[in-house]
Amino acid sequence: MSFEFRILRVDMAARTCTFEPVPQEYTGLGGRALTSTIVAREVDPTCTPLGPHNKLVFAPGLLGATNSPNSNRLSVGCKSPLTGGIKESNAGGQPGGHLAKLGILAIIVENMAPEGEWWQLELGKDKACLVPSTVTGLNNFDAVAKLVEHYGDKCSYITVGRAGEVKLTAASIACTDRELRPMRHAGRGGVGAVMGAKGLKAIIVNPEGGEAAPLVDADAFRSASKRFAKALAEHPITSKGLAQYGTAVLVNILQEAGGLPTKNFTVGQFAEHENLSGETLNKLTKERGGEGKVAHGCMSGCVIRCSGILPDKKGKFQSKWPEYETLWCFGPHSGISDLDKVSRFDYMCDDFGVDTIDVGVAVGVAMAGGGIPYGDADAALAAVAQISEGTPLGRVLGCGTATTGRVFGVRRVPCVKGQSLPAYDPRAVKGVGVTYATTPMGADHTAGYAVTANILACGGKVDPLKKEGQIELSRNLQVATASVDSVGLCLFTAFAILDVPDALPAIVDMLNAKFGWKMTGDDVVTLGQRILTTEIDFNRKAGIGIGQDRLPDFFTDEPVAPHNTNFDFTNEELATVFNWRDEVKELEKNRK
Amino acid sequence: MSFEFRILRVDMAARTCTFEPVPQEYTGLGGRALTSTIVAREVDPTCTPLGPHNKLVFAPGLLGATNSPNSNRLSVGCKSPLTGGIKESNAGGQPGGHLAKLGILAIIVENMAPEGEWWQLELGKDKACLVPSTVTGLNNFDAVAKLVEHYGDKCSYITVGRAGEVKLTAASIACTDRELRPMRHAGRGGVGAVMGAKGLKAIIVNPEGGEAAPLVDADAFRSASKRFAKALAEHPITSKGLAQYGTAVLVNILQEAGGLPTKNFTVGQFAEHENLSGETLNKLTKERGGEGKVAHGCMSGCVIRCSGILPDKKGKFQSKWPEYETLWCFGPHSGISDLDKVSRFDYMCDDFGVDTIDVGVAVGVAMAGGGIPYGDADAALAAVAQISEGTPLGRVLGCGTATTGRVFGVRRVPCVKGQSLPAYDPRAVKGVGVTYATTPMGADHTAGYAVTANILACGGKVDPLKKEGQIELSRNLQVATASVDSVGLCLFTAFAILDVPDALPAIVDMLNAKFGWKMTGDDVVTLGQRILTTEIDFNRKAGIGIGQDRLPDFFTDEPVAPHNTNFDFTNEELATVFNWRDEVKELEKNRK
Repeated sequence: MSFEFRILRVDMAARTCTFEPVPQEYTGLGGRALTSTIVAREVDPTCTPLGPHNKLVFAPGLLGATNSPNSNRLSVGCKSPLTGGIKESNAGGQPGGHLAKLGILAIIVENMAPEGEWWQLELGKDKACLVPSTVTGLNNFDAVAKLVEHYGDKCSYITVGRAGEVKLTAASIACTDRELRPMRHAGRGGVGAVMGAKGLKAIIVNPEGGEAAPLVDADAFRSASKRFAKALAEHPITSKGLAQYGTAVLVNILQEAGGLPTKNFTVGQFAEHENLSGETLNKLTKERGGEGKVAHGCMSGCVIRCSGILPDKKGKFQSKWPEYETLWCFGPHSGISDLDKVSRFDYMCDDFGVDTIDVGVAVGVAMAGGGIPYGDADAALAAVAQISEGTPLGRVLGCGTATTGRVFGVRRVPCVKGQSLPAYDPRAVKGVGVTYATTPMGADHTAGYAVTANILACGGKVDPLKKEGQIELSRNLQVATASVDSVGLCLFTAFAILDVPDALPAIVDMLNAKFGWKMTGDDVVTLGQRILTTEIDFNRKAGIGIGQDRLPDFFTDEPVAPHNTNFDFTNEELATVFNWRDEVKELEKNRK
Repeated sequence: MSFEFRILRVDMAARTCTFEPVPQEYTGLGGRALTSTIVAREVDPTCTPLGPHNKLVFAPGLLGATNSPNSNRLSVGCKSPLTGGIKESNAGGQPGGHLAKLGILAIIVENMAPEGEWWQLELGKDKACLVPSTVTGLNNFDAVAKLVEHYGDKCSYITVGRAGEVKLTAASIACTDRELRPMRHAGRGGVGAVMGAKGLKAIIVNPEGGEAAPLVDADAFRSASKRFAKALAEHPITSKGLAQYGTAVLVNILQEAGGLPTKNFTVGQFAEHENLSGETLNKLTKERGGEGKVAHGCMSGCVIRCSGILPDKKGKFQSKWPEYETLWCFGPHSGISDLDKVSRFDYMCDDFGVDTIDVGVAVGVAMAGGGIPYGDADAALAAVAQISEGTPLGRVLGCGTATTGRVFGVRRVPCVKGQSLPAYDPRAVKGVGVTYATTPMGADHTAGYAVTANILACGGKVDPLKKEGQIELSRNLQVATASVDSVGLCLFTAFAILDVPDALPAIVDMLNAKFGWKMTGDDVVTLGQRILTTEIDFNRKAGIGIGQDRLPDFFTDEPVAPHNTNFDFTNEELATVFNWRDEVKELEKNRK
């Protein structure tokens, strides 16, 4: 029998798991392209996100379980309970590659278990079944440890912590890394709350015996894959920078650029930034030794190895290296400069299953509203610990920044479409500000990471403080990213894609060799535009109008030091980002 | 010098109060027509509601300070921090008439005082000035008592309690009644949070020496006014029903109709309804005597007198008669049947300055989420008391139902556009369900009170359980209500307007006699449509699309006992409510 990709449909009410052939309309799609297409086709945009009509979709990328470097990310899609719009959030770790190895193009989880019932989904070669969960009420680390005891260390695990169980809107979905730690999260948009609402506590993926899709032209694939690996090895960021310093390498860079939002976006630099820098992280990890690790990859096939392990003072595992965004939100944004306390925050977020960004930004916003003393790391950690306890304060923080800002009566709430801004001040890194405002995901740096050309001089250079070129930059990156997210590639490969001329052709050649396609670079653009169109159309039907493509007005009103620039795009300018869409053409026409 | 209406513009940052002549574009408007027009013209729809670019507008109706019965209501408008859309919320009490008597067509409060500064606005004949507030930190009853001590009992008072000070999104604005009690509230949409955000704690309105606008034809006015009074006296609801039982008369009626939402909208009848009925309220008030009062009017010129005063067991003032909606949300919706405890809830809401509906519905939703034990009145009162204390739980409840539902992870959250549904089950009173879904205000019974024809057989009879005729009914009522809200009339006059043929002509004749117009009944429709168009356009620019004109899907999924009907309107059907709008015509065209 020849290999066939399959869709696994899991009905939580009927408790059935059905393998289905891939229908025409989903063929040739993967990752974000597939999750967004499925959500747009199968989910009523006006449904209650935590209700039975929402669906939760998991999809590895098109290059999942191949020998391509860094291609095993897992996309998770649904209608977001945080933004009310469509959501794709993707994670590293092992499950993406394992699902691809089982020939599963997507898992569609639909309906919901009766209130109070919790299930776990066992997946293996030609096997899928729901069994009562054995880890209900446990947070991610304990849950995974117990699952590993039963199912073994060859499996990978997808779980929600207590935040997902009680359906907090910043709840994440955790994927285990190669050491079976639940530290790679589909973090944004409350996807964990949707998993919790379905009554699905965990997915166990046993890849044993699975065979990944055969390659139509194995030789061509091998050769293209080598070219892609070479491109990654050539670029200083993907070959060295990220491995040595993690994404924390950005702390000093953004400080220097005056784009490190401090004290709830009141200023763009933080005096104690050095305590939290990638350089410090590297040094401390080496000094403390023990279980610490520099240059650690979160998933099989990773050649970038940014994830690192930070040991405590005794050399014991403390947490993964916090990402730059995590360091930032619990750090400068909240007036905290103690690396070990940020690490503790990171661990708690991984354990409870919440987005470090939306919760960390919420901490700083609660400080602005008087709910937590400003800069008090211990008070902040105690407040975050309450997420797991389910107190009112814990629940508020676990619902993320928008809810926290509302509850504490804060005027300056850095959110777009209900999702908190990440770690780059949109007044000092204007390209990413355009992305925050316009992406259908709600504020999200990964949706069009203009920090590249604005700050890192990757893919050209666009002055971060000027308006010129930012709309086009954000547009091109949003389109390209939608495609990258569909292939299963780690976004960090983008540094090489932007700068090394052979990187993108190599990816296209891998896709063609795997599937027997005749795709060109132009098709990548078309695919990206199609995905964005699908997502924006979903949002329009959900009642999210173009009037929500805006930053909060304090970014326009208040220039930020040290550059004293503000976010100065007009609504009309922002509306032109998706210039291939009819509604934009219509707006343009009416203006003339 | 001839009489001239004026606009009072209050700049909270510059601390200036400026009387301005009425510009052409605001001429001939009053109440909701004026607040919505000003907000739409002067406020950026994408602004932060609690920021400096929002404006808070107060406007008496067109017939304010005349001898027309029941025409002294005060409209309050702004961009709502609760819904994110335009808001008009109106209140009885004395300030509306007093402002009209001072010739003030509207107060426009703009900008904001520096954080932490609190001001009060003194208004009198040709006088307006801001002085530092003497009542900061006090709730409404204490604040007003202290203000009365200083400014005397001839003034009326507009205040926010501590909920407004800390900018909770269910915060209301209190107006004093004839006995100087702050019990008539512009309750919905968080208008009190906007007043708090401005740094405006109180407005003192001294009507002494003021002269209301002269009547162009005084004789014609007097005669029309008598005809209107006669119409009100003829109708059993406006002449007797409301005076004897208050709006609580509806408890038994909705129970009988199976439309009394119980236990968070799981069933349409409440076994212990009799404890909370208008009949019980009347009986208890008479039995207890003392300071209790049946047939009490909240504002000068009221002939309906629905507001009543409920004494405690010793005959002392306890609270006003709770409105039907208040009795319902803290009562059946929350599984509580103790009238004195509902009365206590009502008093606390008046005192702290929060909307009884959004907070009461939040209580029942918190019960559904396990945050308060179901049906436990004392636990619920203790939780509500925390609103004033500013604890996390108190703040959550004070932010209303949508926030409470989110924080407690509740799936069945009865809100539209972030505002909670009132006391009529949309599955058993389908006309009001259409209003909830479509009004630009967020779920609001007063925006198109189809309970009239559905349940009370006022203005005809439309079967509440069937779809037929509901769209048209809601449309006509929404249009008519927008006009009624502009005249300053109490909505309860609508019972007479719907049933007594001479009532509407009498109103039109009063307007013509006062202003020298030649308005017809058709013009009333045109005005109502224009107001709604202005409001909907504002919402569209704010990013609230037609996809938000929906009830939560559990109303479609779950039939409600005893009739076992569900809310069965398609999105396409709901879209036709505002059938004079281009976007609706466009949708229709595309469908063909």
